[in-house]
Amino acid sequence: MLLDENEIKKFFKQDKLAKYLGIELVDVLDDGVIAKLDIQDEHLNSIGTVHGGTIFTLADFTFAVAASIQGKISVAFNVNISFMKAATNGTLTARAKKISLNPKIGSYTVNVYDNKGDIIAIFQGMAYIKK
Amino acid sequence: MLLDENEIKKFFKQDKLAKYLGIELVDVLDDGVIAKLDIQDEHLNSIGTVHGGTIFTLADFTFAVAASIQGKISVAFNVNISFMKAATNGTLTARAKKISLNPKIGSYTVNVYDNKGDIIAIFQGMAYIKK
Amino acid sequence: MLLDENEIKKFFKQDKLAKYLGIELVDVLDDGVIAKLDIQDEHLNSIGTVHGGTIFTLADFTFAVAASIQGKISVAFNVNISFMKAATNGTLTARAKKISLNPKIGSYTVNVYDNKGDIIAIFQGMAYIKK
Amino acid sequence: MLLDENEIKKFFKQDKLAKYLGIELVDVLDDGVIAKLDIQDEHLNSIGTVHGGTIFTLADFTFAVAASIQGKISVAFNVNISFMKAATNGTLTARAKKISLNPKIGSYTVNVYDNKGDIIAIFQGMAYIKK
Repeated sequence: MLLDENEIKKFFKQDKLAKYLGIELVDVLDDGVIAKLDIQDEHLNSIGTVHGGTIFTLADFTFAVAASIQGKISVAFNVNISFMKAATNGTLTARAKKISLNPKIGSYTVNVYDNKGDIIAIFQGMAYIKK
Repeated sequence: MLLDENEIKKFFKQDKLAKYLGIELVDVLDDGVIAKLDIQDEHLNSIGTVHGGTIFTLADFTFAVAASIQGKISVAFNVNISFMKAATNGTLTARAKKISLNPKIGSYTVNVYDNKGDIIAIFQGMAYIKK
Repeated sequence: MLLDENEIKKFFKQDKLAKYLGIELVDVLDDGVIAKLDIQDEHLNSIGTVHGGTIFTLADFTFAVAASIQGKISVAFNVNISFMKAATNGTLTARAKKISLNPKIGSYTVNVYDNKGDIIAIFQGMAYIKK
Repeated sequence: MLLDENEIKKFFKQDKLAKYLGIELVDVLDDGVIAKLDIQDEHLNSIGTVHGGTIFTLADFTFAVAASIQGKISVAFNVNISFMKAATNGTLTARAKKISLNPKIGSYTVNVYDNKGDIIAIFQGMAYIKK
């Protein structure tokens, strides 16, 4: 059973960390999920740029939503993230898309963009699909 | 020039996200850095376990401290993280150690443990050393 | 300038390791590249299954072909590979597809399948695009 | 039961791919395993530098030896490899060390060096320990 967009949005309102950081789920489409974050002071690291943990959390949230579309619970077991460019202000946008999905493993990529549309991080996540 | 423990602790008090999440820097030793986090409600994901973003941020913070010991600014360019076990409450402890360091690249591993001492995540980070 | 399929096939005949291992380039399409390998004795590891290095090389070759389609030289800087299932005989098939491409960085995923169509490895590669 | 150096060296002579490529196991010490490879023509890629698959195989072999020291069979499930510098000739040396080991998961890092002692790749491997 696949979930519809409203069920998914309602379910992910329970994500406490996403709420605490101000992450907003924008679109839940079968070919991609989009989430956003307006950069605030609490998102920064010790050198004044957006913390890797902020970028990771935004991407991880978007990945979790994308992995939920198939209607089963899935749990991330490995993520590889590369950081290309620092961000300091404005809005970050994450776009997740499914790369492959088989009965046991789902693979997803999330690109994170800054205000200018430049890619700042590529997140590659793999999840076990629970029965 | 290598920084001493007090300088490093002072510098990392500027890490806004770490402060916002309640991450505490415990030890800064040349052979390892330790940080802790008491799990609170805002650290959880939509299924009630500690969010991957919380675990990543704790590990990334510990990695950043470890990478700063050599006294130059370094910037993470790639992280690979594997999640072994879910955590729900208690205290998380992250221990970072240096794997290799050359003039351009530093490689560090951070293990994250739960209350019972079980490993819940292995974080492998690489950073460019800035001149 | 984009290269055509024949130019690409000709160019990759110069890949000495691919030739030495018996890797065969099958299809070069804009939405995916396919390469194959018939498992031989020299592809195995010490426990008699296909060596991780064999699977990596097949995937890496397919990735390099996919990354060359845009017509510029690109160099892999990071690969994350997960192994799902052991293989022992028959033919391995690798399918590469482009995940994202910007002026500096290309990101590609390669799935490797065994004889039965089961996925045995997911390879996620990133390459710098040279000017 | 821990294996001794001679048993390990004998066991890994069965690694067919390592033999086919000319990989030589040099040292098996508890705090590190060293293997070498003299670069030959068949190790190169289409642009005349050492193939990522060659470097991966050398590192993966060294990792497998290091993971075998604890005396149980282990199977790699995830590897992250970053390539820092191209190599063209001479001898490559890989040094594996254990990062962490618990009853289920072993984590190892392998650094690969060229003739000049420059690091050309960092390989981070994780293995399931079989019962």
